[in-house]
Amino acid sequence: MPFRATVLTLYPEMFPGHLQYSLSGKALERGQWLIETVQIRDFAADRHRTVDDTPAGGGAGMVLKPDILASAIDHASPAGDTRPRLLMSPRGRPLTQNRVRELAAGDGCVIVCGRFEGVDQRVIEARGLEEVSIGDYVLSGGEPAALTLLDAVVRILPGVMGNAFSGVHESFEGDLLEHPHYTRPQVFEGKEIPAVLTSGNHAAIEGWRREQAEELTRARRPDLWTAYRRDKT
Amino acid sequence: MPFRATVLTLYPEMFPGHLQYSLSGKALERGQWLIETVQIRDFAADRHRTVDDTPAGGGAGMVLKPDILASAIDHASPAGDTRPRLLMSPRGRPLTQNRVRELAAGDGCVIVCGRFEGVDQRVIEARGLEEVSIGDYVLSGGEPAALTLLDAVVRILPGVMGNAFSGVHESFEGDLLEHPHYTRPQVFEGKEIPAVLTSGNHAAIEGWRREQAEELTRARRPDLWTAYRRDKT
Repeated sequence: MPFRATVLTLYPEMFPGHLQYSLSGKALERGQWLIETVQIRDFAADRHRTVDDTPAGGGAGMVLKPDILASAIDHASPAGDTRPRLLMSPRGRPLTQNRVRELAAGDGCVIVCGRFEGVDQRVIEARGLEEVSIGDYVLSGGEPAALTLLDAVVRILPGVMGNAFSGVHESFEGDLLEHPHYTRPQVFEGKEIPAVLTSGNHAAIEGWRREQAEELTRARRPDLWTAYRRDKT
Repeated sequence: MPFRATVLTLYPEMFPGHLQYSLSGKALERGQWLIETVQIRDFAADRHRTVDDTPAGGGAGMVLKPDILASAIDHASPAGDTRPRLLMSPRGRPLTQNRVRELAAGDGCVIVCGRFEGVDQRVIEARGLEEVSIGDYVLSGGEPAALTLLDAVVRILPGVMGNAFSGVHESFEGDLLEHPHYTRPQVFEGKEIPAVLTSGNHAAIEGWRREQAEELTRARRPDLWTAYRRDKT
């Protein structure tokens, strides 16, 4: 069974979006994964197809109604569907490459895209939604986040990456940011490729790359650096 | 002058992607921002339109050539263009809502989307590219990251959000994750809206929301919680 993504959204036209191109698009054509969308609005009960209402306790924005969203989820992911149910939300736990790997190893996922101010807390609890954040910034809705998460997952599904994309030595696949890269021409605007890289000395190249990766991580990501140092000792 | 985004990519067909819909799409139609793409491959010098080459020092993957990318950047962002030049990369500094706000306050941005193993370090330095990461996971390329960044920026451009989207009390607009939301119906699958929210006591509602936001932040985001506590004392 290929990896199956079901996306609940008010904007089904946003999918598969950029995932229809390049590696993920070819994999979609080959049937290595599939994506389906569910229009949450189709589960509205009234004539005006209302999906949101004002927040209890007052405040700005609108809240996605629990009854409507529960019906949409029950339709998209009935009893027996073992796929994790994600809710894209800046309140969620930050997405990591480890979680991406776990998701890619499974059957697929059900992704709820929030809009408006938020989603009624009761449906999050009643349907066991796992809140996931892709980063510390605010998006227009869950859709860009869902597309980003799916891109990360699809690229590591079996058979999706060609040989040119080995998946090794990538940032976050290890514990350090990646070392700098160089390629031809040998001289670019007066700057040469660092001599060690063209020395043919593999141990020296390995050492230089490690050193550069450590330096970059220390400078840019004190959080990753601290974790790396802790794991080393 | 509207906010102007110029995206350098090998996949121009991925843009404007999901940004053509909803709020960002309407703002695009109204001319409140604009997006243009530059095909990096158009700047390749050879008959085969080669843009990448093997990494100096060996290793997996291919590296985007500095000369080709420099030509593309010089075309897209000539002398006098004051817009920041971003390179979407997992090696970059993590994107924050503060940086999103700074970008939205400017003229626009030039975004380079990497593919393959990486981009030659010399062109990053020679053209002053600011490496930006949208999160600690690996994507197929810079394109999904660029679309995500632009979504965050465009939604806060002047006039893009309607009144329903106040932009206040959002996660990362403050220092805490957002409190839970509730709306009608009063009872959903046997669960009531927390009584305090329907009490009409505004001070109590405010206090409850603050408490919930603190509890959630402490549980899910020890990093934000530590920063919040430090700022408070």
